[in-house]
This record gives sequence, structure tokens and C-alpha cells, in this order.
Amino acid sequence: MAPSSPLIATPILYTYTGGAAGPWRISSIEAVVGEGLPAAARLAVRGAESGGEAVGSWSLRGVTSNGRYTTGEEARTLAERQPSLGRAEATRAALIPIRKSPSWWALAQDARRELLQETSRHISIGLDYLPAIARRLHHGRDLGEPFDFLTWFEFAPTHEADFNSLLKRLRATPEWAYVDREVDVRVRREVGEQANALLA
Amino acid sequence: MAPSSPLIATPILYTYTGGAAGPWRISSIEAVVGEGLPAAARLAVRGAESGGEAVGSWSLRGVTSNGRYTTGEEARTLAERQPSLGRAEATRAALIPIRKSPSWWALAQDARRELLQETSRHISIGLDYLPAIARRLHHGRDLGEPFDFLTWFEFAPTHEADFNSLLKRLRATPEWAYVDREVDVRVRREVGEQANALLA
Repeated sequence: MAPSSPLIATPILYTYTGGAAGPWRISSIEAVVGEGLPAAARLAVRGAESGGEAVGSWSLRGVTSNGRYTTGEEARTLAERQPSLGRAEATRAALIPIRKSPSWWALAQDARRELLQETSRHISIGLDYLPAIARRLHHGRDLGEPFDFLTWFEFAPTHEADFNSLLKRLRATPEWAYVDREVDVRVRREVGEQANALLA
Repeated sequence: MAPSSPLIATPILYTYTGGAAGPWRISSIEAVVGEGLPAAARLAVRGAESGGEAVGSWSLRGVTSNGRYTTGEEARTLAERQPSLGRAEATRAALIPIRKSPSWWALAQDARRELLQETSRHISIGLDYLPAIARRLHHGRDLGEPFDFLTWFEFAPTHEADFNSLLKRLRATPEWAYVDREVDVRVRREVGEQANALLA
């Protein structure tokens, strides 16, 4: 059931809160481009259905939504290969909030698609790291959030080098010239701990 | 300046409130597909920058955002032909909130684009009514709103028949088979009255 879910896209609001609470221990916060985020000890991830108020050093929101660029064929390939979130062995994760420049958003749909995939191979690069790395994409721009996207990745410690390689390749693409703020938040948890309030 | 603005897409949140206040007098509320909206006397339109609290019978929110389907060429053609909101002669308007079915949102980007333009000629049909009819599109789905889109149209009384023809053609398209809720709210104002708190 889960692998086919990318095509079923009821928006769910997620909040990522850096503070004193949460199952994920923050190991580093790096400002990749532009302003970073304040230091915090732990990260809590809450889905809209999980309730409770976010109290922390910072709180970022985004909604899962329908795909904006993937074709049906690409979506089916992704669905076949991508793993679920919350795997027992995936004790490392990364929250990477990203903002793109006004010049990106001034581009029409066809120009953005061309830059993202035909020029930068964003979707293809991501496929190279499946099924090692599970991911969830959230949109924040239409919510008035400081970041246009919250990207969330989960992987086993043995795949951390692969994950770093994925980031290195993406950050070298023409698409990334349009990224004007990016923060890389790395977290880890103990094996067996409940990772997310809502796995969707 | 205004005609090129569709490519500059900083999201602005708009709220449409049916109640006792507002420059637009509501002349009819028709449930086209699915559940309608409660009766109200007047319509207020507020942009995020205009402040104040919405008090009324109903209140619907949506953000203007980047284009999701138009190509660069289509966007340039639209920008050349489309008029600004708030024209003195445009004393009639329509708010048409629309929700699409889960099966629409389960389609990938390429399938939605194909249905919208290549099959249904949505963008082309709209062009046939420029510059008579000014419009603004707002997205509500990612905000958790009851409608996925709020569409707003302004025109002179002399173009009301053209506007009805536009709606008739759109509603007959294959794309409209995916519309599972649609309400048609017609409004009018006196010549010379201020129509909108924020013209963007």
C-alpha cells in the first residue's frame, strides 16, 4: 500500500520543531546557503493529526501535496523503488529546508520542469539512491513559511556516505543556482525508538 | 507593469467573506456541483496586507501563487492580453470556488497538464475572452481549505453574456468531469466604488 501512495496526495501539514523535546537528537545544524537556524537539542516531527503545540527554538511547517513535476512514468518508478519512512534500521535522518530565489518562481512551469529534470536530472539522481534513502517532501511557500520546501530523509548509518553523495550531486546542478537559502539539520535516534508521530 | 506580473509570483493570501459588509453586493449564489454556500448580502475581498478580521456568513481563503500549468509562451500571451483588476467599468464580478476530485489529484503533472490544455483547451478558451474579463486565481488546497481553487473574475455588464459563455464552454470539457464541488457567486457594485482592498 505505502509504495503507491505518492500518487494519492491528500495534503497533510507537518511541523518540524527544534527544541528540548522529540525522538530525534540533533547532531548538527549547518547553514549551507544563507541564514541558518538556531541551535537546538532535539527535533520533534508532528503530523496534522497528531495534535499538541510546538514549543521550541524554531518551528517549520510544510504540507505534503500533489507532485508538481514528476510525470506518471517517473512517479510509478519512484513508487516501485522508494521505501517507507519509519524503517527500524533508519536511525539517521536529515531535515533540509530550502528556499528558492524569486527568479526561480518567476519561471513558467515548463522552464522549471526543464531545469529540474532535463537539465539537472534531479529526479534521476534521487532514483540512484533508492531504496536506501526514504524521503518526504513538504511545501511551505504558499503557507507563507520562510522555506519553500522542507525535505526529510531517513536512512541507516551505513548509508550516510551515500546520502552525502546525493546532496553533493544535487548541489552541483544548475537547479541549485536558484537555491538562496538551505540549512542541513542532521539527526539520529536510538534503535527501536518511535520516530514519527504520523507515518504517511 | 501589471501585464507582466503573472510571471512574478510572490504568494499573497486573499480572503473572500460573504456577510453584511463589503463593496460587492451579492446578486446570486448558485450551487453548480455539490454543496453550495449560505446566503449572504455582501462580499468583502481582503488581501493579506489589508488587515482586519473577516466576520461573515462564510469566509474562503486562497493564495495567489506561481503558475502550475502554463508554459512560458502561454504566460507571455496571457500577460499581453489580460487586463488589470479594478477597472472602473468592471462593475460585475464572480467568485467561483472549485474543488477537484481525489482522482484529479492522483494524476501526475503531465496527465493533469494534458487534460487541462491539450484535451480541454482550458488556457485557450480563457484567452478567447481577453481582454474583456479580468481574473485572479487563488490556491486553497494546501491551506486545508474546503475549495482547491478560488477563481475571481471582473467584467463590465456588457460582457456578462460572454462570461456565461466562457463558463459554459469550460464546464463542458473533460477537465470539468473532475470538478466535484463548484459554487457560482455573482456580485455587482456601483460605478466608482472602491472594489478591492488590494489590487495585485
